[in-house]
Amino acid sequence: MVQPYGDKQIKLFTLNGNPQIAEKIAQSAGIPLGKVSSRQFSDGEIQINIEESVRGVDVYIIQSTSYPVNNHLWELLIMVDACKRASANTVTVVMPYFGYARQDRTASPREPITAKLVANMLVKAGVDRVLTLDLHAVQVQGFFDIPVDNLFTVPLFASHYLEKGLCGEDVVIVSPKNSGIKRARGLAEHLDSPIAIIDYAQDDSDRAEGYIIGDVAGKRAILIDDILNTGKTFSEAAKIVQEGGATEIYAVASHGLFAGTAAQLLDQAPIKEILVTDSVASKEQHPKNIAFLTASDLIADAIIRIQERRPISPLFNVAHPEKNN
Amino acid sequence: MVQPYGDKQIKLFTLNGNPQIAEKIAQSAGIPLGKVSSRQFSDGEIQINIEESVRGVDVYIIQSTSYPVNNHLWELLIMVDACKRASANTVTVVMPYFGYARQDRTASPREPITAKLVANMLVKAGVDRVLTLDLHAVQVQGFFDIPVDNLFTVPLFASHYLEKGLCGEDVVIVSPKNSGIKRARGLAEHLDSPIAIIDYAQDDSDRAEGYIIGDVAGKRAILIDDILNTGKTFSEAAKIVQEGGATEIYAVASHGLFAGTAAQLLDQAPIKEILVTDSVASKEQHPKNIAFLTASDLIADAIIRIQERRPISPLFNVAHPEKNN
Amino acid sequence: MVQPYGDKQIKLFTLNGNPQIAEKIAQSAGIPLGKVSSRQFSDGEIQINIEESVRGVDVYIIQSTSYPVNNHLWELLIMVDACKRASANTVTVVMPYFGYARQDRTASPREPITAKLVANMLVKAGVDRVLTLDLHAVQVQGFFDIPVDNLFTVPLFASHYLEKGLCGEDVVIVSPKNSGIKRARGLAEHLDSPIAIIDYAQDDSDRAEGYIIGDVAGKRAILIDDILNTGKTFSEAAKIVQEGGATEIYAVASHGLFAGTAAQLLDQAPIKEILVTDSVASKEQHPKNIAFLTASDLIADAIIRIQERRPISPLFNVAHPEKNN
Amino acid sequence: MVQPYGDKQIKLFTLNGNPQIAEKIAQSAGIPLGKVSSRQFSDGEIQINIEESVRGVDVYIIQSTSYPVNNHLWELLIMVDACKRASANTVTVVMPYFGYARQDRTASPREPITAKLVANMLVKAGVDRVLTLDLHAVQVQGFFDIPVDNLFTVPLFASHYLEKGLCGEDVVIVSPKNSGIKRARGLAEHLDSPIAIIDYAQDDSDRAEGYIIGDVAGKRAILIDDILNTGKTFSEAAKIVQEGGATEIYAVASHGLFAGTAAQLLDQAPIKEILVTDSVASKEQHPKNIAFLTASDLIADAIIRIQERRPISPLFNVAHPEKNN
Amino acid sequence: MVQPYGDKQIKLFTLNGNPQIAEKIAQSAGIPLGKVSSRQFSDGEIQINIEESVRGVDVYIIQSTSYPVNNHLWELLIMVDACKRASANTVTVVMPYFGYARQDRTASPREPITAKLVANMLVKAGVDRVLTLDLHAVQVQGFFDIPVDNLFTVPLFASHYLEKGLCGEDVVIVSPKNSGIKRARGLAEHLDSPIAIIDYAQDDSDRAEGYIIGDVAGKRAILIDDILNTGKTFSEAAKIVQEGGATEIYAVASHGLFAGTAAQLLDQAPIKEILVTDSVASKEQHPKNIAFLTASDLIADAIIRIQERRPISPLFNVAHPEKNN
Amino acid sequence: MVQPYGDKQIKLFTLNGNPQIAEKIAQSAGIPLGKVSSRQFSDGEIQINIEESVRGVDVYIIQSTSYPVNNHLWELLIMVDACKRASANTVTVVMPYFGYARQDRTASPREPITAKLVANMLVKAGVDRVLTLDLHAVQVQGFFDIPVDNLFTVPLFASHYLEKGLCGEDVVIVSPKNSGIKRARGLAEHLDSPIAIIDYAQDDSDRAEGYIIGDVAGKRAILIDDILNTGKTFSEAAKIVQEGGATEIYAVASHGLFAGTAAQLLDQAPIKEILVTDSVASKEQHPKNIAFLTASDLIADAIIRIQERRPISPLFNVAHPEKNN
Repeated sequence: MVQPYGDKQIKLFTLNGNPQIAEKIAQSAGIPLGKVSSRQFSDGEIQINIEESVRGVDVYIIQSTSYPVNNHLWELLIMVDACKRASANTVTVVMPYFGYARQDRTASPREPITAKLVANMLVKAGVDRVLTLDLHAVQVQGFFDIPVDNLFTVPLFASHYLEKGLCGEDVVIVSPKNSGIKRARGLAEHLDSPIAIIDYAQDDSDRAEGYIIGDVAGKRAILIDDILNTGKTFSEAAKIVQEGGATEIYAVASHGLFAGTAAQLLDQAPIKEILVTDSVASKEQHPKNIAFLTASDLIADAIIRIQERRPISPLFNVAHPEKNN
Repeated sequence: MVQPYGDKQIKLFTLNGNPQIAEKIAQSAGIPLGKVSSRQFSDGEIQINIEESVRGVDVYIIQSTSYPVNNHLWELLIMVDACKRASANTVTVVMPYFGYARQDRTASPREPITAKLVANMLVKAGVDRVLTLDLHAVQVQGFFDIPVDNLFTVPLFASHYLEKGLCGEDVVIVSPKNSGIKRARGLAEHLDSPIAIIDYAQDDSDRAEGYIIGDVAGKRAILIDDILNTGKTFSEAAKIVQEGGATEIYAVASHGLFAGTAAQLLDQAPIKEILVTDSVASKEQHPKNIAFLTASDLIADAIIRIQERRPISPLFNVAHPEKNN
Repeated sequence: MVQPYGDKQIKLFTLNGNPQIAEKIAQSAGIPLGKVSSRQFSDGEIQINIEESVRGVDVYIIQSTSYPVNNHLWELLIMVDACKRASANTVTVVMPYFGYARQDRTASPREPITAKLVANMLVKAGVDRVLTLDLHAVQVQGFFDIPVDNLFTVPLFASHYLEKGLCGEDVVIVSPKNSGIKRARGLAEHLDSPIAIIDYAQDDSDRAEGYIIGDVAGKRAILIDDILNTGKTFSEAAKIVQEGGATEIYAVASHGLFAGTAAQLLDQAPIKEILVTDSVASKEQHPKNIAFLTASDLIADAIIRIQERRPISPLFNVAHPEKNN
Repeated sequence: MVQPYGDKQIKLFTLNGNPQIAEKIAQSAGIPLGKVSSRQFSDGEIQINIEESVRGVDVYIIQSTSYPVNNHLWELLIMVDACKRASANTVTVVMPYFGYARQDRTASPREPITAKLVANMLVKAGVDRVLTLDLHAVQVQGFFDIPVDNLFTVPLFASHYLEKGLCGEDVVIVSPKNSGIKRARGLAEHLDSPIAIIDYAQDDSDRAEGYIIGDVAGKRAILIDDILNTGKTFSEAAKIVQEGGATEIYAVASHGLFAGTAAQLLDQAPIKEILVTDSVASKEQHPKNIAFLTASDLIADAIIRIQERRPISPLFNVAHPEKNN
Repeated sequence: MVQPYGDKQIKLFTLNGNPQIAEKIAQSAGIPLGKVSSRQFSDGEIQINIEESVRGVDVYIIQSTSYPVNNHLWELLIMVDACKRASANTVTVVMPYFGYARQDRTASPREPITAKLVANMLVKAGVDRVLTLDLHAVQVQGFFDIPVDNLFTVPLFASHYLEKGLCGEDVVIVSPKNSGIKRARGLAEHLDSPIAIIDYAQDDSDRAEGYIIGDVAGKRAILIDDILNTGKTFSEAAKIVQEGGATEIYAVASHGLFAGTAAQLLDQAPIKEILVTDSVASKEQHPKNIAFLTASDLIADAIIRIQERRPISPLFNVAHPEKNN
Repeated sequence: MVQPYGDKQIKLFTLNGNPQIAEKIAQSAGIPLGKVSSRQFSDGEIQINIEESVRGVDVYIIQSTSYPVNNHLWELLIMVDACKRASANTVTVVMPYFGYARQDRTASPREPITAKLVANMLVKAGVDRVLTLDLHAVQVQGFFDIPVDNLFTVPLFASHYLEKGLCGEDVVIVSPKNSGIKRARGLAEHLDSPIAIIDYAQDDSDRAEGYIIGDVAGKRAILIDDILNTGKTFSEAAKIVQEGGATEIYAVASHGLFAGTAAQLLDQAPIKEILVTDSVASKEQHPKNIAFLTASDLIADAIIRIQERRPISPLFNVAHPEKNN
C-alpha cells in the first residue's frame, strides 16, 4: 500500500471525464481525491461546488476531455473558475487526454485552430500549468505560455514490447499514415528496429489506395498511432501490412476512443494485440484482443515531482527489462 | 417582402442553437444567411468551415446557447475563432438566449461565477460585441468590457397585453419569486397596474410554503419571469394566486426552455395563456395554451441599427395600440 | 487585550478613507498599522510614501471609498502602485465601503458601468484580492476575476435584533424599495419573520406615491437597506409603514453616509432606532437615535483567515444569543 | 467666422476640467460641443450621461486634469467607459494639462510612479489616443503604448517674444531649476539667445540657497518653466536674476495653476510679464502682470489633422513675424 | 509595366532583411516603397525614422528574418513600434522567411519555444497581421491569435517541374528526412508521383547512417525540404538516392540560406538543379547549378488581396502549363 | 573567501553579455553560476539549453545588453522563455547595462520609443523583476509595471573621489551636456562642490560650438556622464573646460562602451583619469588612463537583499572614508 502523501498544501480533484484513472492516480500518489459536486441541470448547464476549502492550496484537477468533449471542457473551465475565486494558490490541469488537439492548424481556408482556442480558454480561465500525455503534435505545447509538461507514452510501450521480446531487426515499426512517422521513429529507437510507412496517394482525408513505403515482409509489425478513434486507420493498415508479408501484427495507440463501430472493425482486422493506455474512459465497446497499460503511475509520479519542484525529465526514459538470465 | 439589404460588408451566420429564429431574423433584415458547415465528429468534437469569404466583413453570428448549452457555446467560440483568423472585420455575437446567465454570483462558498466565465471566454475568443435579449440580471452587461446591447422583451409583452385590454387597476402583475420584482414593476409601468410578489419563507432553492405579498383578489393576474424552465415556478405561483382570488391568470416569460415535464405541469395549472418569445428552439413538448411572440423583428432591427451606427435606444419603447375607435 | 499577531509577513496600512475602523481592525487582529505618509498638494495631487519596507510582504490596505470618493479611490490606486513597485508579495484591498457600487448597470442608454470601471482600475493597478462588506449587488463580485470576499452584515444585524427579542411573526422586515427585497428576505430568515415591500408606482428615481405590498398592521417593522445616504428612502418608508399600522419602526443599513440633511430628515421620521455599521467614517451629522455596530472584528477575523489560508465561510453564520433562562 | 466642419463622424465633448478652452477649441475647429450631463452626488460620486448618440463616432473628450485632479480624472475615466459601452468608434482624450505628470519616477524608495498609473488607467478604461500639451517630461509619452501627440508650447512662446523683439544675444533664457534646462535650450534655439540656470546646492525639494550658473548681467532675462504652481520657483529665480544684474525679467510657463498665494508672491517679484497658456482653468487669483496665449487654435488644428489622417508635425514650427518693412 | 496602384491608404516599406525581394514585390504590386531610414550605431543599436506620414495608413513592412536574424528581428520590432506610435491604421508584417521557425517545440527538457516567443514579441509590439511563406511547421500559425496568411511554395515548384515534364510514375519525390514527409506528399500530389523518405537510425541531430524507405531505382528523384541551410541534408540525401539507383536528382527548397560551406558541399553532390525562391537575400556563395523562382508576384498578389478584402485562397492552386501541342 | 550562500532556491546564470561581471557577482554573493549552454548557429539563431533544473527556483539572469545589443537582447528573451517554460518560480533580469535606454522618447516625429519596446518585450517574455544600474533616464523605470530596482553609481564614484580628496569648493562637477545636469548635481551633493554645464548652441545632435555655463577657472573639474560611447562628448568637454582654466580634469561614466576610436580620442584629451564601472564587457580598446570600479559587490548585495526580502535602499548611501587620523 502506498504511503499517504505528507504535503497538506496539495489537493487532487477529479471531474467526470475519467474518474477511473483519477482514482488510480490518487492511490498511486497517496493523496485522496478531494470532494467536489458537479451537477448537470435539465438545460445542460453544469453547476460545480467545491466541498472543501482550497484556500492557499495547490489544486490538481484531473480531467480527460474525451467524449462528450464540450461538456468535459466546460466542466473543467467552470471548476478552474471556482478554484481561482476560492483562492486556490495554483491550479494545475491534468489532462490524460487532450481533446481537440488534432485541430492544430488551418487545414483549409477559414478554418479555426481549435487546439489553440482550447489553450487560450484554459489560460484565460486561470490555469497555471498543464500536465498532459502524448500530445497529438508537440507544437501544441507552444500554444501555451504557461508551463506544459507533456509526458510520453513511447517509453511505456517500449518496456511492454521489450518484455515480450518484440525488438530488433525482425520487427518493423509501421506508421499507418504519413503524419505519424516521428512517433514510429521514436518507438523504433527504443526497440532497435526499422520503420515503414503507409502512404496514401490522395490526401489523408480521402484515402483510397494505401501502399507501404519500406519493408515489412517476414517481419513482425507494430502499428503505432496516437489516437485510436474509429479503428479505420489501424484496420486498413493491418490489411496492407499483412499483404506486404508481415508475419504478426500488433497495434498500439496512446489514447483509445473506440468510437462507433471501432470494436467490430478491429475484431475483423489481422491484429494480434491492440495496446492502449487508460487515458480515456470510453464507454464504447472494446475489441477483444485489447490490452491496457495504465498511465496512472507515470502521471502520479509527475504530479509529485511538480509539487516537490523536482525535474520530470527522468520520467522520459524506458525501464528496460532485466537482460541477463 | 423585405427589400434585400444593400450593405455588402455585413454577413449573417447561424449555428445550431436556434436556426429557426436566425432564418426569421435574416428575412426581416433582408440579409440572407451565409454558408457555414458545422459538423460534430463521433468523439463530440465540432469542426467548422466557413464556406464563403469573411475577409473585411462585419460578421453577426446568431446562436442561442440553450440546451445542449456546452455544445452550443463551443460551437460559438470555434466559429468566432474561425472568423477572426479568416480576417473578419468585426464579430458580433447575437444571443437571443444567453445560457448560464443565472450563475451570476457565488451563491454559496467556493462556487464559480459561470456567467462571467462565459463572458471572458467570448471576449478572449475574439468577440467584438454582444447583442442579447432580456439578460437574467442586467449586471451581466458589466461582466463585459466590450459593448453589450441588451434588448428588452417587456415592451413586446406590454403591446400584446394592451392589445388584449389587459391593463389598469383590475390587472395585477405578479412576480412569482422575490428576485423578479424589477421585471414585474417594468411591465406594471406599461400597463398602469399594481404589482404583487410570491414570497417563500425558505430560500428559493428549497421552497416549501409560498404566500402572496400584495393584493390579487378579484383581479386578472399576469405572472412574469425571464426564464421558463421546469414550469414549477409558474405552476406553483398560479395555484397561490388562484387561491388568493385572482379571476384569470396569464403567464409570460422571455425564454421558454420547457425542460422535462414542464408541459404537463403547466397544462395542469390554472393559467389561461402562456406567452414566450421564440428565443429558444426547444425540442421539448410545449403546453397547450402557449402563445409565441417573435423577437426576430426586434433583433433584426437592432442588427441593422448597429451596422448603420444608429442608436438602438428607440427600440426600448412600447408600440401602443390605437386608442380611439 | 489582544495578543500581537505572530506572522511577520503581513502588514496592515490605512489611508484616509476610514482610519477609525482601520485602527479597530488593527487592534482586533493584533497587528499594528504600518507607517505610510499620504499628502495632498495644493493642486489636489496626492503623494504617497510608504515609510517601512514592504518587500515580500502581504499588504492589506484598509480604505473605505466614501466621500470624497474620487480622492479616496485615487489614494488607494496610488498606494497599490507604490506597494507593487516596492515589491510587496500580495496586495489585498480591504474596503468596508465600496463606493460607486450602485452604478452596476446601464440604467439608461449611454451610461457607464462605473462599478466595473472601479474593478478594472483596481485590478490593473495591481490588486490581488478584495475584501469588502455587503456589496450593493452581489453580481459586482463577478466584475472581478481576482478573489473577492464579500462579508455579510445581515448576521451581525440579526444577532442584534435577536438579542432585543425583535423576531418572530409579530415583526415584519420591510424593504423600503423594490430592489432591496433579497436583503429583507435574508434578515427575515434569521428572525423567522415575514417581509413587506414599499413599492413606487413610478420608477425609483422619480418616486411620487409609495404604498406597501404586504402586511404591517400591528407589527413591529424593521426597515432594511444597504446604503443610508440622504435618509429620504427610510424617512418616506417609515411614514408609509406608520400609516400602515406598524406599532414600532426600526431601520438598519450596512453603510451610513448621512449626506446633507439626512440627520434632520431622520430625526423627524417615526423611527425608534437607526442601526448602521462603522464602515463609513462620515463627517456629516448623525441622527439622534443612531446605534453603531462595529464591523471591525468581523473584518479582522476575515483578514487573519485569509492570511492563514483558512476558510472565511464560517463568518457567514449568526451568533444566536443564549436561548434558555 | 469659422466654417462648420464637414465630417459628421467626429464629436467633441467637454467635461468640467476646463470648459472655457473646450469652447474655444470647438469654435476654432468649427465643431460644436456635444451634449453630455455630468452630475456629482452628495457622496461625491459622479454620474455621466451622454445625451446624443456616439455609436460609430470618433469622440474627442477635452479635459484638463488640474485641480481638483482626482475628480477630473474620474470624470474622464467614467466618460471614456460610457463612450466605449455606447459603441464609440474611437476615443481620443484631449488633455491641455496632464495632471500628476511630475510623478514620473520613484524619487525615493517605495514611491509610486503616478504618471504611469494615470496612463495605465486611461488605457485600461478604453482610451485609443491622447493629445496633450507640453508634457512635464517627454518620457511620459513612453508610459503609453497608444499614440500620444504631445504639442509644444515653445513655438507659441517664441512667436510672442520675437514679435516683441525679445531675442538675440542681449536676451538670456533662464531655467529656474536644474531639471528645466532642456526647455530653456528649446526657447533659446528659437530666439538665438544664450541660456543660464538657477542651481540649488541642496536637492530641489529643500532649496535653501540658489545661485546662477551662466551670465545674466546687462541682459533681458526670460524665465521659463512648464508648470507655474505656487509661484515660488519663479519668484525666487527672479530675485536671483535681478541680483545677477538682469535689466528686465519675463517669465513664461505652459500651465498656470496659481495655487494658494501664487498671485501675491508673483506680484511682489520683479517680473515684467508672466505669460501662460489657457490650458488650466484656474479659479485662483491671477497676478496683475499676467498675459495669456490661447492654445486652443493649436489644439483644434491638431484635432482636425488627427481626424483627417494628416501629419501634426508641421505644428511644431514657429510662425516668425515678418522680418522686413 | 505595372499600373500604379490606386489606393492611397496603403504603404509598403522594406527594412534591411531582403530589400531585393521588397523592390520586386513593390514593382509587381504597383506601389512604390515608402521612405524609412534605419541606421545602426557603433554600439549596435538600431535607430529608425519613418520619413513620410503613416497616419491612418495600412502599413506593410517587408522583412525576411534571415541572417543576422537578431538584428533583423529587432529592426522589425522597432519599425512596428514606430508605425503604431505614428498612428498607422494597421501594421502587416510580410516575412518571406520567418526566422526561428524551427524552434517550435521543446525538443529536450528546459528548452525554449523560440518561434512562439517571436510570435509573442511581434504581437506585443503591435503587429495586426502576418503574411509569410511556407512556414516550417503549419502549427506556428496557431502561435498567433492575429490572422496569419501562410503562402505555399509547392504550387510554384509544381508548375516549374510540370513545365519541365518532371512528373508521373517515373519521378519520385524524396523527403530527405522524416519530418518533411508532408511537404514531399504535397508536391507528389501535384506531380502524380510516388514518394520516398530518407530515414536515419539515430535521431536527426546525430545522423550517422541514412537509408531509403521507398523505391527510387530507375527514377528521377526530386529532393524537397523547406530550408536549405548548410546543404548537408541535401548532399547526403543525394548520395543515398544515387546509390539507390535514381537516374537524375533534383533538389528544391523554399528558403535558401546557404550557410558556411553549403555551396561547396552542394557543388560536389550529384544534384542536377537546386531550386529555391528569393525569400532570403543570402550574401553567402551559391552553388553553381542553382535556379531561382521569385516569390514576389505571389506575395504582391496576396498583399493586394488582403488590402482589398478579397480571399487569398485562390493563390494556393497550381498554374498548369498548356497540355496540348 | 565568501561563504557559500545557504538558500538553495536561488540560482544565478550568465549569458554572453558580460560573463566577467557575472563571475564576480557570483563570487561576491557566494552563489556559483548555474549551467546553461547558449549556442549561435550559422544563420545567427541562438539556441539555449538550461543544463540544470530550475523548477521552483528564483532565477537571476545576468546580462548586459551592450554590443552586439540585438543578439544580447534575444539571448536574454530566449533564456527567459526557457526559464518560464521550465517552471522557474521567478525570473529576475540583472542588467548592469541596459541597452537602448537612450531611446526613451520620440525626439522627432515618427520615431519609436525603443526603450519602452525593450521593456514591453522583457515583460511579455515573462520577466518578473529587473535589477539595473544607473538608468539613462529614471523615467524608464516607469516603462515597466513590474518592480525595477535601479542601483546608483554616484555613491560609488563619490567614495572614490572622497578618498582621493577630490571634494569641496575647489572642485567643480561638470555636466558635458545639458541633459546630464541632474547627474552632475547628484555627485556635487556628495562632494560639496559646485556644478557647471557645457552648453551647445545647436541641438545636441549637431553640436558645433560648445561653451561653459558656470565657473571652472582654477578648479579641478570632474566631468560626469552616464554612458561613455565614442568618447567625443568627454573629449570636447575636456578641451572647453581646459580653456576655461580648470587645473586638472577627471572624467567619470557609469558605462564604458569605448566604441570605435574612443580610446585614441580620449588619449589625446586633457583628462587625468577616466573612471568607469565594469558594467560593460567592451572588447574595444581602452584609453591609457582608465580606472575601473567594480559594481559587482553592489549588485551581489542587491541580489541577496531582493532574495531575502530586505530593503535595498541602504545601498543608495555613500561609504565615506575615515575622516580622522
